[in-house]
Amino acid sequence: MQPENPHQAKLLASLRLHGPQSAAEMAAQVGLSRSKIGQELQRLEDLGFVERAGKAESRGGRRSGLVQLSGDLRFVGVDIGATSLDVGVTNGRLDLVAHVAEDIDIRSGPDVVLRRAVELIGKLRAEGHLPRIDGVGVGVPGPVSFRDGYTVSPPIMPGWDRYPVREFFLKQLDCPVLVDNDVNLMAVGEMYCGLARSVGDFLFVKIGTGIGCGIITGHRVLRGSNGSAGDIGHIAVNDGGPVCSCGRTGCLEAWFSGAALSRDVNALARGGESGVLESMLADGPLTAADVGTAMRQGDPHALGLVRDGGRRLGRVLAGLVNFFNPAMIVVGGGVATGLGHTLLAEVRSELYRRSTPLATSNLPVVLSELGENAGVVGAAALAGDHALGVDQT
Amino acid sequence: MQPENPHQAKLLASLRLHGPQSAAEMAAQVGLSRSKIGQELQRLEDLGFVERAGKAESRGGRRSGLVQLSGDLRFVGVDIGATSLDVGVTNGRLDLVAHVAEDIDIRSGPDVVLRRAVELIGKLRAEGHLPRIDGVGVGVPGPVSFRDGYTVSPPIMPGWDRYPVREFFLKQLDCPVLVDNDVNLMAVGEMYCGLARSVGDFLFVKIGTGIGCGIITGHRVLRGSNGSAGDIGHIAVNDGGPVCSCGRTGCLEAWFSGAALSRDVNALARGGESGVLESMLADGPLTAADVGTAMRQGDPHALGLVRDGGRRLGRVLAGLVNFFNPAMIVVGGGVATGLGHTLLAEVRSELYRRSTPLATSNLPVVLSELGENAGVVGAAALAGDHALGVDQT
Repeated sequence: MQPENPHQAKLLASLRLHGPQSAAEMAAQVGLSRSKIGQELQRLEDLGFVERAGKAESRGGRRSGLVQLSGDLRFVGVDIGATSLDVGVTNGRLDLVAHVAEDIDIRSGPDVVLRRAVELIGKLRAEGHLPRIDGVGVGVPGPVSFRDGYTVSPPIMPGWDRYPVREFFLKQLDCPVLVDNDVNLMAVGEMYCGLARSVGDFLFVKIGTGIGCGIITGHRVLRGSNGSAGDIGHIAVNDGGPVCSCGRTGCLEAWFSGAALSRDVNALARGGESGVLESMLADGPLTAADVGTAMRQGDPHALGLVRDGGRRLGRVLAGLVNFFNPAMIVVGGGVATGLGHTLLAEVRSELYRRSTPLATSNLPVVLSELGENAGVVGAAALAGDHALGVDQT
Repeated sequence: MQPENPHQAKLLASLRLHGPQSAAEMAAQVGLSRSKIGQELQRLEDLGFVERAGKAESRGGRRSGLVQLSGDLRFVGVDIGATSLDVGVTNGRLDLVAHVAEDIDIRSGPDVVLRRAVELIGKLRAEGHLPRIDGVGVGVPGPVSFRDGYTVSPPIMPGWDRYPVREFFLKQLDCPVLVDNDVNLMAVGEMYCGLARSVGDFLFVKIGTGIGCGIITGHRVLRGSNGSAGDIGHIAVNDGGPVCSCGRTGCLEAWFSGAALSRDVNALARGGESGVLESMLADGPLTAADVGTAMRQGDPHALGLVRDGGRRLGRVLAGLVNFFNPAMIVVGGGVATGLGHTLLAEVRSELYRRSTPLATSNLPVVLSELGENAGVVGAAALAGDHALGVDQT
């Protein structure tokens, strides 16, 4: 299933970015005549890409029908994290119609993890959520060769290097399959369904166990010359500092990430200076989420960790803002959600202090609106882009 | 003068990136049938875009004619620097057929500088280098609103803020005019005519009075959300350090740039520790070029300045390489040319030490091949892209 000509692809891309529209609005958007638009839209309706929706606001005359992407299309998003596996189903408009999630360990290897992903897709199908599958998008937590559909030297994924992820799904499912880095997909999700909706150039910063960045320019993912663009976790904040998993010192994610917060908060709790943290330790080792909990209980040590971390993240982002001049920064991932606006305030402060005024004159820094759904929605969106002929190569 | 349809634009773009080709090679490049190609090429020849060149290498049968961009087209590149004004003329293949340069002071304001640029174009026309003008590209040393054709808050250009540069040329010359940041244009020049020829994703780092960066992704300039992308001179290397022209401390160009080198080498010379530098001071204050001269004479103090500077530049580039994952880094600008491979060695060393192995596994760091012509060639290339229907917006 693919659009038949460039006009159809243009119309679908416009519906994708701007939502339901009247034929008149689309004519203005894509620069085609009304009669040509009508003809191509009818064809797209016959092919099952689009459907008629409600009525547009009248502009003082006849009311014209809105066109939207079809609610019958079904795209599957598979979001593979270091410790979690999410499978979601969307329609053509990227409404999430079903979602299952469970804990996994990425280190159990691709055979185990991917087989489980296919089982979950089968489960969703058995429950009636997948009368059809128009495409599958898969996100993995490491660098990906997008063209080849496999991971390349992923640091936290033993056994996954050059494993043919796309082939695995293709053998099990009769539909197009696309594989990308998880953070790139979260960025795509935000571009279509989050606060960055229809923003052409922005950064999506994911703070989870590590730190990564999805880069969108001209409404497309920037993947770099070998798929590792956005790997900001190992940018040096300064000389010295904690030893990173990569063997160097001073990397951003050695200073600030889920793993770093967990290391630091346990050290603080064991040090005994904070009564709040010490008492939390009674239930076992603390996690990055506990830092947020303690901070909200007013613990200054936990607050200090968040402020120091936000300042270091802001410092790295300040350089990237000068370089890339984005229109927005969206911060997401499990750890960021738990730390919320305290984290953002510190990031913003450092960003405005260190970036050039022109680059920050109109730069919102916001928390992800999609939250934990960004990955599956983005993965489904990637599959949808392929089906609708929107180029994301 | 514009191509008549997308097929023609594709053929022109392919000739632009890959040079003279046979119809068979182009058929493979752009995915059109031989007969369609033949038809469109004939039309492009009639329109004056292309011409027949020599014969291609025979592949064991008939010899087929090569097609190339026309040698009769004329594009003007105007490269406005802080202290220099260059005007060059190229043909359709971007061969530089004429070039004049003179000293100016950008602070004398747009009326004076632009009038002089138009006079130089008139001089080249009087000398017979411009039987026609198919487009003018203008580079200025500050952020540009590409769409509007004017500079935006340029820090070193008093009187130029929102001055209608494009309108000025349009009033004097009857052809399309495009205005861009000078470093962006140097990057375009390298993409078409330098070592980055046909490299889709690379960085061009210019070291002149200040430091800037041109970003090419997918063979196009990345300008950012308000035209300030690539402004790497104010990325902080560390806390503290010399005060920058922007009022902050620790900025890359406060540590290392033509201005910083000139400041530091004069301080060293006056300090009296280096006999070489002290004797050079007899002829007046030293410049960044003198650092290179002293270094080549074996002065360890001058060498130290270059090594320290290269290390700091490498440190900033290491972060950008992790973020952007370019396929090449080209270093140019007057100061870089004078410091040559000593500078590059230090940059490379720091880059390989601080970037992730995946991002640097296959990353050449090279000196600009175009040297001082990069700016005019790039400016003419931008005008050429417009005339040939190659999208650089």
